[in-house]
Amino acid sequence: MSLPRIGITLGDPGGIGPEIVVKALADGSSLPDARYLLFANAFVLEDQERSLGLKLDRTRVFIREVETPLRGLKQGAPDKGNGAASFLYFQIAVQAAQAGEIHSLVTAPVSKTSWSLAGISWRGHTEFLARLYPGAIMTFWSEKMTVALFSHHLPLREAVSKITRQNLVDFFRALYHGVERLKAGAHRFLVAGVNPHAGEDGLMGREEMDEILPAIEDARREGMNIDGPFPPDTVFRRALGRPGDIVVALYHDQGLIPFKLAAFDSGVNVTLGMPFIRTSPDHGPAYDIAGKNLADARSLREAIRLAFELAPRAL
Amino acid sequence: MSLPRIGITLGDPGGIGPEIVVKALADGSSLPDARYLLFANAFVLEDQERSLGLKLDRTRVFIREVETPLRGLKQGAPDKGNGAASFLYFQIAVQAAQAGEIHSLVTAPVSKTSWSLAGISWRGHTEFLARLYPGAIMTFWSEKMTVALFSHHLPLREAVSKITRQNLVDFFRALYHGVERLKAGAHRFLVAGVNPHAGEDGLMGREEMDEILPAIEDARREGMNIDGPFPPDTVFRRALGRPGDIVVALYHDQGLIPFKLAAFDSGVNVTLGMPFIRTSPDHGPAYDIAGKNLADARSLREAIRLAFELAPRAL
Repeated sequence: MSLPRIGITLGDPGGIGPEIVVKALADGSSLPDARYLLFANAFVLEDQERSLGLKLDRTRVFIREVETPLRGLKQGAPDKGNGAASFLYFQIAVQAAQAGEIHSLVTAPVSKTSWSLAGISWRGHTEFLARLYPGAIMTFWSEKMTVALFSHHLPLREAVSKITRQNLVDFFRALYHGVERLKAGAHRFLVAGVNPHAGEDGLMGREEMDEILPAIEDARREGMNIDGPFPPDTVFRRALGRPGDIVVALYHDQGLIPFKLAAFDSGVNVTLGMPFIRTSPDHGPAYDIAGKNLADARSLREAIRLAFELAPRAL
Repeated sequence: MSLPRIGITLGDPGGIGPEIVVKALADGSSLPDARYLLFANAFVLEDQERSLGLKLDRTRVFIREVETPLRGLKQGAPDKGNGAASFLYFQIAVQAAQAGEIHSLVTAPVSKTSWSLAGISWRGHTEFLARLYPGAIMTFWSEKMTVALFSHHLPLREAVSKITRQNLVDFFRALYHGVERLKAGAHRFLVAGVNPHAGEDGLMGREEMDEILPAIEDARREGMNIDGPFPPDTVFRRALGRPGDIVVALYHDQGLIPFKLAAFDSGVNVTLGMPFIRTSPDHGPAYDIAGKNLADARSLREAIRLAFELAPRAL
């Protein structure tokens, strides 16, 4: 049985990425039992090790040097060179994932502004991946709440039109497949309705009766632990503090309004529905505290844990 | 200068309504300086006073005896007689408000099930009022968050179609008029967008550019302190803990998902856009603790305070 292989990108070198990566990968005892491949510039990591007085666990952590324009390190603000470098770490890591070299990919935070300064028009990791994999599923994990988005960057009108029995069943299958490595029975899906009070028997919209409930029943017949549709304004409260309950939100803001309220800055962003898993801490490069040894690696550690647990590996 | 007159209904006599009403109206020193008209059955109140060892402040609290089928008191479960009585308290109180006898109305919690047992098909106070006053505005107040709903019980598709510059400007005016008795400058309106990331310059929907922003600019020209459209998934976080920031949600769940998460059971429901103000604690009749002297009157006290502050009185 070979160990799962987890790729990690350094993120924007001018932000807290290098610091949280070294912090998370120095303490080998707390790491899931995997091989870690770090897409980075070695000199940035070595610099970070020196200033933190920490050493990466070299028995399991391997550095994949990426060719970037970076020669020195500028921290604390968006920067063209850092933008180019962080995009290259990511691009090369995605290629490694596509080649099967890694089973999952953890991305440290990048800056949209640095990317833009470097002439890169993607708004972030997720947009890049969603273009490559139109079936990508955005999910958000925290101790407070777990949310999966049926659709993401669509105008609300279009998001509502996408709610059909067939689209939903396809989504439930892909989502179920994406999380099936989690302990069986440890999670269930709570599907939100789309209309106020989940339509209240057709009084305030028919999508629940005509599309959502039939899709849930189809999924249940296939053996999924899935329930709903629930009134949108109470289902998140119901799932609060129950990490095994994964709420299926039917459009972007239905899921992200409550998630950002309940788990701001402490959550993990997980992309499913691709040949590999991608996870990411749900915070930015935090330029204001970069280079000050003040960054908290908790969210990144959690992202690594989920990248390990969800990795679609055949061992 | 005459005192404002505030009506209060007893709510379902089988729930905690009578207890919290007596608790809130016994301590006269904490009450806003108004005349209180209690729509109730006197025997229920007297019974409650005895069992709590409290007396209503009879210098300012007056009982309006309502003719109901109630003779004895059954507590702790939905009940036909209690349903009929609580509906009659409410109906008579609304008539008093329409006649100008009271300036605002505070409703203690009723039970939809008791109403249904008594053959009353309204789902609650709000539905009854919304039918009488189609321009009624639902707002939700707590220390954590204040939310106003641009639309409420509409299918999401229809709610999106309602988002036009003219409808929005009319709504902003009515809302502004409804809260203008609050201290000037003490509040401002933050308008949420309707699409992910507030449309991101038309990339994910055009309502923000074509309808919402022009409406906000119109309202600002009329002197309102109003801003937006903000990305829906961050505006509630931004307003959290700032009670002067009133978030305008463009559809039911956009506002109620975050409100119920942040202020569950502790908020106050305020109906504006009618000739009188109606406020209500945001909890139910709590049958499980009825008659046990365990009920907390805080939410009702807050509902009374808002009924006083927002009352559209000409003094």
